[in-house]
Amino acid sequence: MSTTPSVLVISAHAADFVWRAGGAIALSAQRGAPVHVVCLSFGERGESQGLWKQEGMTLEGVKQARREESSAAAEVLGASIEFLDLGDYPLRVDDAAQERIVGIMRERLPDVILTHVANDPYNRDHNLAHETTLLTRMVAQAHGHDPGAKPLGAAQVLQFEPHQPEVCGFVPELLLDITPVFDLKTRAMRCMAGGQGHLVDYYTELGVRRGVQARRNGAPSSVIHAEAYKRTFPTVGEELR
Amino acid sequence: MSTTPSVLVISAHAADFVWRAGGAIALSAQRGAPVHVVCLSFGERGESQGLWKQEGMTLEGVKQARREESSAAAEVLGASIEFLDLGDYPLRVDDAAQERIVGIMRERLPDVILTHVANDPYNRDHNLAHETTLLTRMVAQAHGHDPGAKPLGAAQVLQFEPHQPEVCGFVPELLLDITPVFDLKTRAMRCMAGGQGHLVDYYTELGVRRGVQARRNGAPSSVIHAEAYKRTFPTVGEELR
Amino acid sequence: MSTTPSVLVISAHAADFVWRAGGAIALSAQRGAPVHVVCLSFGERGESQGLWKQEGMTLEGVKQARREESSAAAEVLGASIEFLDLGDYPLRVDDAAQERIVGIMRERLPDVILTHVANDPYNRDHNLAHETTLLTRMVAQAHGHDPGAKPLGAAQVLQFEPHQPEVCGFVPELLLDITPVFDLKTRAMRCMAGGQGHLVDYYTELGVRRGVQARRNGAPSSVIHAEAYKRTFPTVGEELR
Amino acid sequence: MSTTPSVLVISAHAADFVWRAGGAIALSAQRGAPVHVVCLSFGERGESQGLWKQEGMTLEGVKQARREESSAAAEVLGASIEFLDLGDYPLRVDDAAQERIVGIMRERLPDVILTHVANDPYNRDHNLAHETTLLTRMVAQAHGHDPGAKPLGAAQVLQFEPHQPEVCGFVPELLLDITPVFDLKTRAMRCMAGGQGHLVDYYTELGVRRGVQARRNGAPSSVIHAEAYKRTFPTVGEELR
Amino acid sequence: MSTTPSVLVISAHAADFVWRAGGAIALSAQRGAPVHVVCLSFGERGESQGLWKQEGMTLEGVKQARREESSAAAEVLGASIEFLDLGDYPLRVDDAAQERIVGIMRERLPDVILTHVANDPYNRDHNLAHETTLLTRMVAQAHGHDPGAKPLGAAQVLQFEPHQPEVCGFVPELLLDITPVFDLKTRAMRCMAGGQGHLVDYYTELGVRRGVQARRNGAPSSVIHAEAYKRTFPTVGEELR
Amino acid sequence: MSTTPSVLVISAHAADFVWRAGGAIALSAQRGAPVHVVCLSFGERGESQGLWKQEGMTLEGVKQARREESSAAAEVLGASIEFLDLGDYPLRVDDAAQERIVGIMRERLPDVILTHVANDPYNRDHNLAHETTLLTRMVAQAHGHDPGAKPLGAAQVLQFEPHQPEVCGFVPELLLDITPVFDLKTRAMRCMAGGQGHLVDYYTELGVRRGVQARRNGAPSSVIHAEAYKRTFPTVGEELR
Repeated sequence: MSTTPSVLVISAHAADFVWRAGGAIALSAQRGAPVHVVCLSFGERGESQGLWKQEGMTLEGVKQARREESSAAAEVLGASIEFLDLGDYPLRVDDAAQERIVGIMRERLPDVILTHVANDPYNRDHNLAHETTLLTRMVAQAHGHDPGAKPLGAAQVLQFEPHQPEVCGFVPELLLDITPVFDLKTRAMRCMAGGQGHLVDYYTELGVRRGVQARRNGAPSSVIHAEAYKRTFPTVGEELR
Repeated sequence: MSTTPSVLVISAHAADFVWRAGGAIALSAQRGAPVHVVCLSFGERGESQGLWKQEGMTLEGVKQARREESSAAAEVLGASIEFLDLGDYPLRVDDAAQERIVGIMRERLPDVILTHVANDPYNRDHNLAHETTLLTRMVAQAHGHDPGAKPLGAAQVLQFEPHQPEVCGFVPELLLDITPVFDLKTRAMRCMAGGQGHLVDYYTELGVRRGVQARRNGAPSSVIHAEAYKRTFPTVGEELR
Repeated sequence: MSTTPSVLVISAHAADFVWRAGGAIALSAQRGAPVHVVCLSFGERGESQGLWKQEGMTLEGVKQARREESSAAAEVLGASIEFLDLGDYPLRVDDAAQERIVGIMRERLPDVILTHVANDPYNRDHNLAHETTLLTRMVAQAHGHDPGAKPLGAAQVLQFEPHQPEVCGFVPELLLDITPVFDLKTRAMRCMAGGQGHLVDYYTELGVRRGVQARRNGAPSSVIHAEAYKRTFPTVGEELR
Repeated sequence: MSTTPSVLVISAHAADFVWRAGGAIALSAQRGAPVHVVCLSFGERGESQGLWKQEGMTLEGVKQARREESSAAAEVLGASIEFLDLGDYPLRVDDAAQERIVGIMRERLPDVILTHVANDPYNRDHNLAHETTLLTRMVAQAHGHDPGAKPLGAAQVLQFEPHQPEVCGFVPELLLDITPVFDLKTRAMRCMAGGQGHLVDYYTELGVRRGVQARRNGAPSSVIHAEAYKRTFPTVGEELR
Repeated sequence: MSTTPSVLVISAHAADFVWRAGGAIALSAQRGAPVHVVCLSFGERGESQGLWKQEGMTLEGVKQARREESSAAAEVLGASIEFLDLGDYPLRVDDAAQERIVGIMRERLPDVILTHVANDPYNRDHNLAHETTLLTRMVAQAHGHDPGAKPLGAAQVLQFEPHQPEVCGFVPELLLDITPVFDLKTRAMRCMAGGQGHLVDYYTELGVRRGVQARRNGAPSSVIHAEAYKRTFPTVGEELR
Repeated sequence: MSTTPSVLVISAHAADFVWRAGGAIALSAQRGAPVHVVCLSFGERGESQGLWKQEGMTLEGVKQARREESSAAAEVLGASIEFLDLGDYPLRVDDAAQERIVGIMRERLPDVILTHVANDPYNRDHNLAHETTLLTRMVAQAHGHDPGAKPLGAAQVLQFEPHQPEVCGFVPELLLDITPVFDLKTRAMRCMAGGQGHLVDYYTELGVRRGVQARRNGAPSSVIHAEAYKRTFPTVGEELR
């Protein structure tokens, strides 16, 4: 892993990747690694309160607004993005959608995949995104799947932080220093202002808080903002860390 | 953490550090980091069957043999070593012993501490070594303890692998590549031949097995031997790993 | 929450709500709160041994008998009831059924939802009822779902006691005093005599046992019968309890 | 349980039963108990790397080769076998497949069922095999399912060992002495040489390792090879063991 | 383990062994196995409410009464008994007491040890009995402890059922059929009438309840009474159970 | 529990009760319930960095300053307070100290006890405070302890929030609305300014954050500040909450 790992983000709704992983995305992109975001849905029904309050808003209008916001945010962060439009609240992932995600994994061969936790009692769309990630990762690794193509390697799956971490069994295992790119994350978050603008302050404050925790766990004092991740698989490495 | 982290090993018995962490020790030492081993006991009663079978063996004789074996092993690995002689089966750690370990931590200020798991139902000496490590680490960090001296930083505590990992709740979180130093570990293990020589094959095979697991989790094919560790605290870092 | 909370019960089979939550239902109803029971299936195949032993019994006959028993029991307890007839052993919940349950939640806006545990190795219908509850609750909360209607609030989901609590990971977090309504629960349980009459004694005894446990955990000596519940979400309140 | 318990094995892929449970199968068969293996898929896409490397190989060719290998292995072990051909990576279990498995359980009425763990983050096919087993077991037990037939009893479900046990939450609860049949297991493993021949050494070594663990947990010194299992339900018995 | 395993019971208070393990004790004794009970304390302060209500009762009087009751109960069950008188509420186990228990283990070399769970939030004496059992077992196994004597083997430690099993993390892993000796357990429980007579009904009912659970998990219909145990170590055996 | 429950706080260090439970204390006191705080130590060595920086500071000086700060804070909150001066980093609780705490419990007979979590890997003083609380609670409940006095009832033990909740296994089970007394908590926190003044902002922000979480879990919009607690025992009650 001598170069910066390439990243694939599986985001249940169109904004999750910004709030929960915007720092990791910007950091990787800034270092030259390809980062691609797959939004399973637009979060059009469950996470677009601000948009629905606009007079005359329609489902398609919400979707379009979210697409624009998320695309703008991805651009700020330096990532490419695509939308599978699978519906939200509830998200539905059928066999064809699974196949499509496998195809994306095969094409991009990410080193690291970012997605949601396994069990969020508040939001089953998040669970399904997690399950879908592990299932499609397995298929993308199979030698017998589309035998001519190169199989996915042993990509780590990092789970990003849910809204109520303790209730979701989320334990931070990696506190990622996102200080150098926090301005980018802030700009990306502001792109989401139409739907969930009130969350910018919340996630700014969370970034500071996880930064404090990073320092308490040994990070240098230059670390101001951090994002927390839970690992799915063991790390491998040459150093005691 | 730009340089190789310095290491302190808290070993319940005189041989634990060789079998369970010999690779990590040699790797760190080879890179120029100071590594110090504290053996809380000699394992004179519980882990010296081979020595007790020698005719006319005494408790002091066992201790002396173990001291020599372990010192030789530490030298091979490139670590300094000291013995607290606190007794084994059961290990006893009184206030004075705690103070002494705090003093060692304060003097050496390790970046990483290696020790046993929290709950081994087969071996409560291991539990006590774990508890002692967390307690003395806390004291060594306190600004008000020996106020003139420099407090210990936020040293990570890595738990090494117990004999029956699943029963002890041990989940590998770091698979450390020890391929470059496996010959050193082998030589160090052979130093222990008087007491527990039958374990060399076991730990050689374990090293290979954890190496296989490392590759299955993404390590390059050059990784042949590995050691497994469980983290106590989150990692902090600048990379998605 | 100044008034008695309104209650919705999601029962995998037609009798679960009586045995496991009859006291809670009667208590709430007696205090004037609306209580509605949704039976996902009649338990016609898996929980109607007594009925199947009757000569010439048919599937429709079992369903009808169970509908009558359960309706009578609900009436005794003071609750309204409806049956979705989704099949049992295994229960199947398709998209339309999910939509219907969302509709019920939207119409009734319960403060509390009672349902099964997340993981019962003996009975996967129970698991599906749990999962369905969390998923439909999420949808019913979404502002963008049927935007004109009022969304569901943050209803607590209380899990009622499974047959083999320890094996299902069920830990009692609320021991509800049902002493004042235990006669009603008894009468309701007796309504189920055609299918599972042998359970009346069992659940009477369980009520006493949980009552003893309640007193051991601080309930006044007037508490004779109790029901146990596990919470899904934190409680919020103004008192230290 | 005065006679040797009859066994049903639910294997996600065509080879799992050999590597993970070959000893238990041979042991039971040798004692005269009926043992039947159900392969949900051939593992044609995910576990047949060796076959895919053969020039001109097709999907049907892989399936046929796997069928032959697994049938030969089952014959060596003394078990009957059938293949449901449900696909792999991902495995798909629809309603009809569930019905068929229920029919097999009803026909054979096993005392013990062997299958995969509940949560393997590397392989969701294994999870689905586990879930399918618990669901079909429940249906096969229901008196109202096919009322004329004899329902399945309270069959224990033993989970066999996954590749990375600690990461899958696998704790050995039964270390089964397979020493008397290890030569049979070896012969059966060699039948799989076309697809996964490299695993013979791995599982031979694992058998020895679990044998060592068995002796450390009280087995007599004659125990050389063992297989590890995790129980799903409590055991019942007349002895303190 | 061709003969009935010999049993050692480590009971925090003088009555625990009767309520929680009386059936296992009588069953083993009836089959000719030696069973020995070690009462760490008399439960003189915390579990003798009935005795303290007697006018003029003193601490020594309570202890003496408990000693007589427990001795009578042990005799009924067929076990030998001794009392270490270490105090209760809180129990204190010093080095000398540990040594004495090691001596008992060395002398009796039990195959199975029965004791309390690891974490009972209501009763820390139970925790200490558990910890003491694991620690002294380890010492008794050490070859270097009293080298002339025969070391203890790999005795299983079965944890008996606490008062509030779910809150203590107690999961039944063995449901032991005690039907053939339940009359003996009843007679033994009645011996305790001076101190805790009100518990006879409770434990009779619990025995029936665990018997029902045993049948639901596959025991024959002849099983009426059972006791539940949680294992500390894997079982080893020649059968799939 | 018709009146406001009386409260006892067992605080490892002199300031823990202010940061972690100041709101609960003020709320209870304001409603007329007696609240008493026991500080096991002054936190003189581990939590008084600010004081140690003052020129010429001595251990006694630090203790005195902390006593004054904590006493002032307790007065603001409406609680009485006492200091056991048992030392910190590490805290030591001997038999006499346990006896003293039992005496305090017997004298005050609290309905609710507030203390630390069971397992904080960063701070073993917190663990010992937890363990001490459960042990002394048990003794204070024993009828045979000081037989003339009234035993403690089944006091709930609420664990307050540690610094790094997820790493400590802390799951919020009660989100207590402390909005009406948050100004008092702020004033009390400011009393601690000599030793740990930098924490005022941190805990203000935490109060807001837990308030947001309370609203997301159903609290009315008037709730601005909250404190989180984890329960040790089931609640008992007459309402579904």
